[in-house]
Amino acid sequence: MTTTKKKLVIDTDPGIDDAMAIFVALRSPEVELLGLTTIFGNVYTTLATRNALHLLEAVGRTDIPVAEGSHKATKLRIASFVHGSDGLGNQNFPPPTGKKPLDQSAAAFLVEQANLYPGQVTVVALGPLTNLALAIELDPSFPKKIGQIVILGGAYSVNGNVNPAAEANIFGDPDAADIVFTSGADILAVGINITHQVVLSDADREKLEQSDSKYARYLSKILGLYYDYHKDAYFIKGVYLHDPATLIAAVDPSLMTYTEGVVRVQTDGITKGLTVFDTTKKRYGEITAWTGKPTVKVAVTVDAPAVVEMIMQRLTTDD
Amino acid sequence: MTTTKKKLVIDTDPGIDDAMAIFVALRSPEVELLGLTTIFGNVYTTLATRNALHLLEAVGRTDIPVAEGSHKATKLRIASFVHGSDGLGNQNFPPPTGKKPLDQSAAAFLVEQANLYPGQVTVVALGPLTNLALAIELDPSFPKKIGQIVILGGAYSVNGNVNPAAEANIFGDPDAADIVFTSGADILAVGINITHQVVLSDADREKLEQSDSKYARYLSKILGLYYDYHKDAYFIKGVYLHDPATLIAAVDPSLMTYTEGVVRVQTDGITKGLTVFDTTKKRYGEITAWTGKPTVKVAVTVDAPAVVEMIMQRLTTDD
Repeated sequence: MTTTKKKLVIDTDPGIDDAMAIFVALRSPEVELLGLTTIFGNVYTTLATRNALHLLEAVGRTDIPVAEGSHKATKLRIASFVHGSDGLGNQNFPPPTGKKPLDQSAAAFLVEQANLYPGQVTVVALGPLTNLALAIELDPSFPKKIGQIVILGGAYSVNGNVNPAAEANIFGDPDAADIVFTSGADILAVGINITHQVVLSDADREKLEQSDSKYARYLSKILGLYYDYHKDAYFIKGVYLHDPATLIAAVDPSLMTYTEGVVRVQTDGITKGLTVFDTTKKRYGEITAWTGKPTVKVAVTVDAPAVVEMIMQRLTTDD
Repeated sequence: MTTTKKKLVIDTDPGIDDAMAIFVALRSPEVELLGLTTIFGNVYTTLATRNALHLLEAVGRTDIPVAEGSHKATKLRIASFVHGSDGLGNQNFPPPTGKKPLDQSAAAFLVEQANLYPGQVTVVALGPLTNLALAIELDPSFPKKIGQIVILGGAYSVNGNVNPAAEANIFGDPDAADIVFTSGADILAVGINITHQVVLSDADREKLEQSDSKYARYLSKILGLYYDYHKDAYFIKGVYLHDPATLIAAVDPSLMTYTEGVVRVQTDGITKGLTVFDTTKKRYGEITAWTGKPTVKVAVTVDAPAVVEMIMQRLTTDD
């Protein structure tokens, strides 16, 4: 029996839920993880790189390459109150003991992988879209060579999480996001309208704590701060699984439904970072900023219990 | 039995559905119509004034004063493809025969009425919010003196009707809209998420045509173009009752439900005219452009059949 594994690159700013998503990817038999690329967002890029290397070491997967991404940070909003100042729940982990990032930039690595496996690489983008915009700048044919870009980004028909207009990843680099969304690549966007339905409950957390898989043991250490933040900011018991849910969308797209349309990003003003999704249900009288732009798929519904179950199943069992 | 009628001023850019709303107001026993103020939008202000005078003459209500509003028109988008180049279905009506507008500006009239009847005047704003912003500029206590402002404006959690981001009235003067929404006045906003549910069907149109009320007879003449536009732009048989539905929200607020929160308007960029409604379900980590601003009520559900029935009942019967 031959099965073709899905070749994945995860562009990531670890981040507590990024750690979870990376672990789910490592535990997914459908996935061949080509590498991690790092980006600012939950933490600065330098720390994101350190954390990516550390996470791979922590679970014995130093075979996976890490390429460091852009340090572009105009006015950076670092989510230390969500993920801790170390990005991993303020656990004061030691630095990676041996593993180093590639000499290549994240953008160059993305272009290289797209050229190595044309049409076969899926990028799961869990932070601001700077590296992907740079990859497009580096190689204008990147959008056609990449297989798919699965983006955690945007707030579709709901309020944002940075402010009422904007979701954090798009807010982190709105110009890059607008470039990527209108690039013509095969894009599947998962917004917080979806990920706010995918909640890891207190009961799930207990199951993680009782599991002796190395993944669950690691995550149990770092989840406390993330739970505290959600209680304080959203008045909920549980945490949103933004990054793992997006990873699952790449692994098994059948657990969500999608609508196709054009997404544009507002790049300044009070709604900077806002995503406006034209569902094209109306024929406008005039040419708009959305007219004629390439369409993308935006997730509109999710089988949340199935997504949580898949995440839990993969994290509570060992290799 | 003494009943206090609701004192209404309608700020209007007639407009086919404006004509309908004005007629519904004239036929509402709960309403004392203090006057009409005019504004650009569906047509230029000069024509809006002419049409307001003409409509009152057409149904024998020359007792109602008309105050002409602002001509401010930076880059005006006139909806001649929706309402006709005359704003009233291209019917080539003769000019008003005797009635003239007041010597007072719309803003001055609004301030005067608010001072005459403090806390008792409801403004039903059916066009861009320029006159209301000017009234606030003229008298900073206007927001506290006016009873309520019922606004047809905004697209809440749905695409706009000018482009995917913006609804026409807010797009017409986004700066004015942001001033009004954050003014602290008692505001009730009805967006196209609501009015797109309130549809006058072909069957309703036939009933209007069969009625011999003077209101129905007049409206039957002008509705054709409006039906054509909806078929072409929205692929529906029927027309949206934006203005009459908003008038009904002022007359009988119980036919809708509302959520309270802060509305801000994006004033430039590709999403110029976009309304972002902070439903305050989340505590943001930082101060945002919405933080500490006065709240308004935004309609979130509507009993559409009851609204249509009330409109039809009033238009198909005579005084």
